[in-house]
Parts: sequence; structure tokens; C-alpha cells
Amino acid sequence: MVSGAIPIQVVQRAARYLHYLRKLPPDSPKYISATMIAAALDIYDVIVRKDLAMISGDGKKKVGYSRMDLIEDITHFLGYDDSTEAVIAGVGNLGKALLCYRNFEKYGMRIVAAFDTDPCLIDAEIGGIKIIDAAKIENLCLRLNAKIGVITVPEAAAQDVCDAMIRGGIGAIWNFAPIELKVPQGIALKSEDMAASLAILNKRYQKEKNSLGGT
Amino acid sequence: MVSGAIPIQVVQRAARYLHYLRKLPPDSPKYISATMIAAALDIYDVIVRKDLAMISGDGKKKVGYSRMDLIEDITHFLGYDDSTEAVIAGVGNLGKALLCYRNFEKYGMRIVAAFDTDPCLIDAEIGGIKIIDAAKIENLCLRLNAKIGVITVPEAAAQDVCDAMIRGGIGAIWNFAPIELKVPQGIALKSEDMAASLAILNKRYQKEKNSLGGT
Repeated sequence: MVSGAIPIQVVQRAARYLHYLRKLPPDSPKYISATMIAAALDIYDVIVRKDLAMISGDGKKKVGYSRMDLIEDITHFLGYDDSTEAVIAGVGNLGKALLCYRNFEKYGMRIVAAFDTDPCLIDAEIGGIKIIDAAKIENLCLRLNAKIGVITVPEAAAQDVCDAMIRGGIGAIWNFAPIELKVPQGIALKSEDMAASLAILNKRYQKEKNSLGGT
Repeated sequence: MVSGAIPIQVVQRAARYLHYLRKLPPDSPKYISATMIAAALDIYDVIVRKDLAMISGDGKKKVGYSRMDLIEDITHFLGYDDSTEAVIAGVGNLGKALLCYRNFEKYGMRIVAAFDTDPCLIDAEIGGIKIIDAAKIENLCLRLNAKIGVITVPEAAAQDVCDAMIRGGIGAIWNFAPIELKVPQGIALKSEDMAASLAILNKRYQKEKNSLGGT
């Protein structure tokens, strides 16, 4: 439907629309309007209208969008209907949390292998996934034709793991290590920066405090 | 230095500048320019210059900023120098990962209590923090004067936990549960939406694939 660069904010909001629509009770009305979604999610309705027009075309006059069609269109827009094989490196607490989070399949990512260097973990199984020696990342990524690499190893190991994944044909890196990874052109990268998230929360908190406290 | 709304992007970049500056070897030159930071982080130098001017005033002509002063100014800008007490509810894999991530103190958040409903976990200790019955959230938040509430409980419990935290005087909610929390005015909220993150990565991946593949 749309090509070229799509603003991150649209993608983020689309994920929220979809989450909301999927959670509606099955006996909800067949049609839903941009205004209703906007009110439920506390977003300006002009923005919702624009997003939905881009994702799903114009709604029907007076009634809006068929709920089911809209779910389908947003699912497609977000790439959730097109399952991609993923591997994860680093089976610490965070790696375990991601391995056990079975919902990723709903979002188009299927974890097919997990790697670690700890001999106590290798060959163990977590969330139905067997843990493999990290020395085999490159070979196994190639063999499994995995396209997404999730990195939850300590900072010092992250760049090496990333390089091995890319040699193994990985095209998209989802990085949770607190480091700026270098990736060649043509490789998609998304880093989760917990420190930045915390700073954003802090800023919002200070702002609320100041506007309430008056100083 | 600055009041009013600061764009999230500035905060995110500031966290990256600080991370980079802190990692520089101790024997690095005393001064650093916006251009050098821009090159290292692959950000347009006009943007870095503007951010740094806002955070730390103008640099010295020809030499730029004193590295140490800049670190101090960014630390202050991000609120990392002002430690805030936090509690965390939900000690599953993700909760454990956050509890064990000792680095948060560097970013101005000190976890002082953890809550769960699982009798097997209550009274256990993880990362030096004792786990307490979730029924006590409200009372304990008040007693500890905690201001940040981290939510890593399952979706179904998240709103109740959030309400209890706010009754306990929490002013900032950091939510990892896949749900749109409702918070009263005056409460800061930051939600980590893994589904949206994955969708953003997917979009970037598709874009790279299309621009390389040529179809």
C-alpha cells in the first residue's frame, strides 16, 4: 500500500490501534470509526484518521471501517502476517524473558534458535528452544535461513555476536545490549536503549512535578 | 538550563552522547567538538551542535567542549545525577533482568523494593533486593517514599498494580506490560512496547531488502 520511509510514530501508533482492535469483545459492532479509536487511545482524531487512510484507505462514510478488515490491513502494514525466523544470542535473564514471551509469533517473529557461551546452558531447553554454543552462530543462521538476530549478550560481546550474525545472513538486528553497534549498509538495526527510556521518563516526571508544584 | 517540553529525540540523543563520552579512554584529549561526536555516532553535526548548545551552552571556539564539563552537563540534563527511589512489581524473567541490571543507579534510578504475588518468591532476595507481597505495594511505596514504579507483571494485573502504586505516591510509571495503562493527570508514564519495536525493525528490514533487491 505504501512505500518509502514511514515515520516511526505511525508504526508505533499502528501497533497501538491493532492491539486495541484485537482486544475488543467479539460481539462489538462490525464497524468502527477513527474517532472512536482516537477517543479510546487518547490520540487526536485527525492523526488517527490520517494514519488509517494511509494504512487502509478511506473508511465508509458515517460508519467508518469494518473492524475485521482494519485488523487485517494493520496486521499487514506492520508485517505481522509475514513470519520471519529469528535467533537470539545471550540467554541471561533478559534473553530468557524474550525466549519465554510466546507472543512474538503474533507479531511476525519466530525464534528458532538461541545461543550462549555458558557450558551449563548449552544443550538446555528454554521455552521449547534448545540453547546452542555461540561459536555456531554464523553457521546455524545460514542453515536456518534466519533473518532477525536478537542480541541480549553483555556489552563486551555484542559487536562480535552482531558481526557473526551478519556473516550468517541476518538482515535485521534487534539490540538490547547497551552499546552502539556498527552494522554495514543494508542491515536494519533497532536498539532498545533502557538508559534513554529512563531519561525520558525522568524528564516527564520532572515536568509533571514542576507543573503541579508550581516552582 | 531549559524548561518546557523537550523533544524525546533530544533526550534519546543526549543519552547516546553521554554513553559515548563516558566510554572514551581517560587519556583522551581534554576538549571534544560537536563534529567529533557527530562523526562517531553517525548523526548530522548540525543536530549535535544544536543539542549541545541547548544542554551545555556554546563550546569554545576552535576546540569545542571540555569533555568533563560536557559529561556533567548532560548527566544533569538527563536527570541522572538526581537519584530517585523506584519499586518494581513482577519478578518474572523480565523483572529479574531489571533487578539484576545494577547500572540503573548510574542513570538516576535506585530500586529499593520488588513485589510479586507468588508465595515461592516472597521473602526471597534477587540482586540484593528482598521480594515483598504485592498486597503491600501501596503501603510500602508510601513508607519508602518511592517515586518511580516499574511494572513487569502480566497484562491482566498491570492496571491494578499501577493504581496501587499511584495511591502509594508513585509519580512516574515505567510500564513493560503489553497494555495501555490509564493514569491520572500529573503522573508521568512511559511504556515499552515490544510489539511496536518489532514492527519498526520489520519495516526497516523490508525497506533495506527492497532497496537492495531492486523489486
